[in-house]
Amino acid sequence: MSVPSETFALVQKHDGYSGKAEGPSIESLDLYLDAATIPLQDLSDGQVLIKMLMASINPSDLHYIKGEYGHPRVKGAAAGFEGVGEVVAANGAYAQSLVGKRVAFTVDPAGSGAWADYAITAANVCIPVREDMRNEDAAGHVVNPLTAMAMFDIVRKSETSSFIMTAANSQLCKLMTALGRDENIAPIAIVRRPEQAAHLEELGARHVLCSTSDDFQDSIRAVMKQEKPRVLLDAVANQVSADIFAAMPNRARWVVYGKLDPQPPAFKEMGQFVFMEKRIEGFWLTRWFMSTPPEEQIRIIGEVQERFVSGKWQTEVGATIRLKDAMSDLADALRNANGKVMLVP
Amino acid sequence: MSVPSETFALVQKHDGYSGKAEGPSIESLDLYLDAATIPLQDLSDGQVLIKMLMASINPSDLHYIKGEYGHPRVKGAAAGFEGVGEVVAANGAYAQSLVGKRVAFTVDPAGSGAWADYAITAANVCIPVREDMRNEDAAGHVVNPLTAMAMFDIVRKSETSSFIMTAANSQLCKLMTALGRDENIAPIAIVRRPEQAAHLEELGARHVLCSTSDDFQDSIRAVMKQEKPRVLLDAVANQVSADIFAAMPNRARWVVYGKLDPQPPAFKEMGQFVFMEKRIEGFWLTRWFMSTPPEEQIRIIGEVQERFVSGKWQTEVGATIRLKDAMSDLADALRNANGKVMLVP
Repeated sequence: MSVPSETFALVQKHDGYSGKAEGPSIESLDLYLDAATIPLQDLSDGQVLIKMLMASINPSDLHYIKGEYGHPRVKGAAAGFEGVGEVVAANGAYAQSLVGKRVAFTVDPAGSGAWADYAITAANVCIPVREDMRNEDAAGHVVNPLTAMAMFDIVRKSETSSFIMTAANSQLCKLMTALGRDENIAPIAIVRRPEQAAHLEELGARHVLCSTSDDFQDSIRAVMKQEKPRVLLDAVANQVSADIFAAMPNRARWVVYGKLDPQPPAFKEMGQFVFMEKRIEGFWLTRWFMSTPPEEQIRIIGEVQERFVSGKWQTEVGATIRLKDAMSDLADALRNANGKVMLVP
Repeated sequence: MSVPSETFALVQKHDGYSGKAEGPSIESLDLYLDAATIPLQDLSDGQVLIKMLMASINPSDLHYIKGEYGHPRVKGAAAGFEGVGEVVAANGAYAQSLVGKRVAFTVDPAGSGAWADYAITAANVCIPVREDMRNEDAAGHVVNPLTAMAMFDIVRKSETSSFIMTAANSQLCKLMTALGRDENIAPIAIVRRPEQAAHLEELGARHVLCSTSDDFQDSIRAVMKQEKPRVLLDAVANQVSADIFAAMPNRARWVVYGKLDPQPPAFKEMGQFVFMEKRIEGFWLTRWFMSTPPEEQIRIIGEVQERFVSGKWQTEVGATIRLKDAMSDLADALRNANGKVMLVP
């Protein structure tokens, strides 16, 4: 086939950071993106061109296009951090070896985004995908599964028999719920809508508490007493999270990995850092990649594929949107879908 | 000499915790203590009876008598965690070997407090004091110097060329300022009163910033840019501390060791835990004792005595109050003294 020199894509309208902290909710996509055809740069040494099969949409993508993520936006560049596709061109020996293969990947800063017909990234962040792995699972192979594995490792090393998750109806938390179930470390799920409880219990959550219910404070206290969870994996970082943390026992760790709610929490129990050995820290997958040896990453990637193919994990898709319909349909789908939203060419 | 069976002491009026978090300021001592003569228990195996020479007063003593510390008050028991005195009676072989010696000590929970003519504690927490060490330095041998050594070790291990201290006019911070000066890690001192700056600079502070001055925010930003401090050693834990932490660079650690201000701080930058690898933790000397090998503790104690005797450290005494005058005079002295307040029999 001939190598394309341009691609249809969802293209960023803004440069740099917004200076705001609104969280990842999207009112309307055209505040941040345009649908446009843009030129594809020539491949540098070590890069591959990927014909997209499916892109997943993560909260980090939305934080990013809003200018509230860990690195700055680039105006005119395609959005989208993650997806699965077929390598159709490459530059360099290792990159060439991937041509014709189906790969899961994230887009590195030198590349071109995944919300497009074609994406560009570094060959060394491409993961060849087993034939028996669905596109739905491969499209979200990297961000959620590796975050789940890495954060569950924090839980595993914290000498605790249970852990708490906020925003627990997310795909990420469903993966961690299954890990807790399989390793007998009780998942405690915090959700905002009571109708989400039954399915999370099915997946393995020992307790599901609804933060909007009247008896939430009592339920939290009762569960703390019973389970003594030492780790809070938190995507929300608001007052509810702070209050949960304050109710946790000695040596509790609050691991912040997202900021879904822009409200700044107040800390009423600063003395707990002193007397109860509590701490607050963060998790960012980008840092995990930099600090985890490659052979350990490869081992974990193999485990991820095995979990999906064997059915221990399953990506729950809430909506699949065609790229050309994204400007009109995507924001609604993100608001209403019960499960992952996927983009397809 | 005959062994006394009772002691004059400042005796706690309340049991347990107050459930409040007002901080260590004391309006009037008789809200919490009575001056009274109480019986001295028989010495258990391993205990010593100490004739007091001088007791130091730390914020932790005040937190404790107010019911806001890490362990509960005991009604009827003498207050006071720390002091220096002569061992006049003992039970057990090692304890007996200390009789006649001048020792610095803290009072363990089974003992009887240091704000008294006689105190009881465990022989194994007594530190024999060199003859050339002043009572003023020996009375505060344990809490501040070991906290200074331990927290400065956190600074040393944080790959930083500077560190920040709040409430920096305290005796503890003066010790840490001298350590920073001697090891060329720039101390940045935050104070509330501008007249405290000159003396702290003399002791070795590279910068002294006054949190009540109009240009505090600008000064903080300028100093952050210049020094890039990675550690905040914080006794205050209020909004000023939280704002300083938010202005610190990547990988900043906020180490809380006190809560002088009861105000709960709000955190406006929760995303910094994720993207900037920041964290909040605490320091409590009690935990340091439990987790540090005895031989390491002994090495550090030797270093502490050497620093005091050589003049690298000096305890600055602001007021010395006689035990029998404490009920009327101590609260005022704590409010007004510029330096440590000491109690003498």
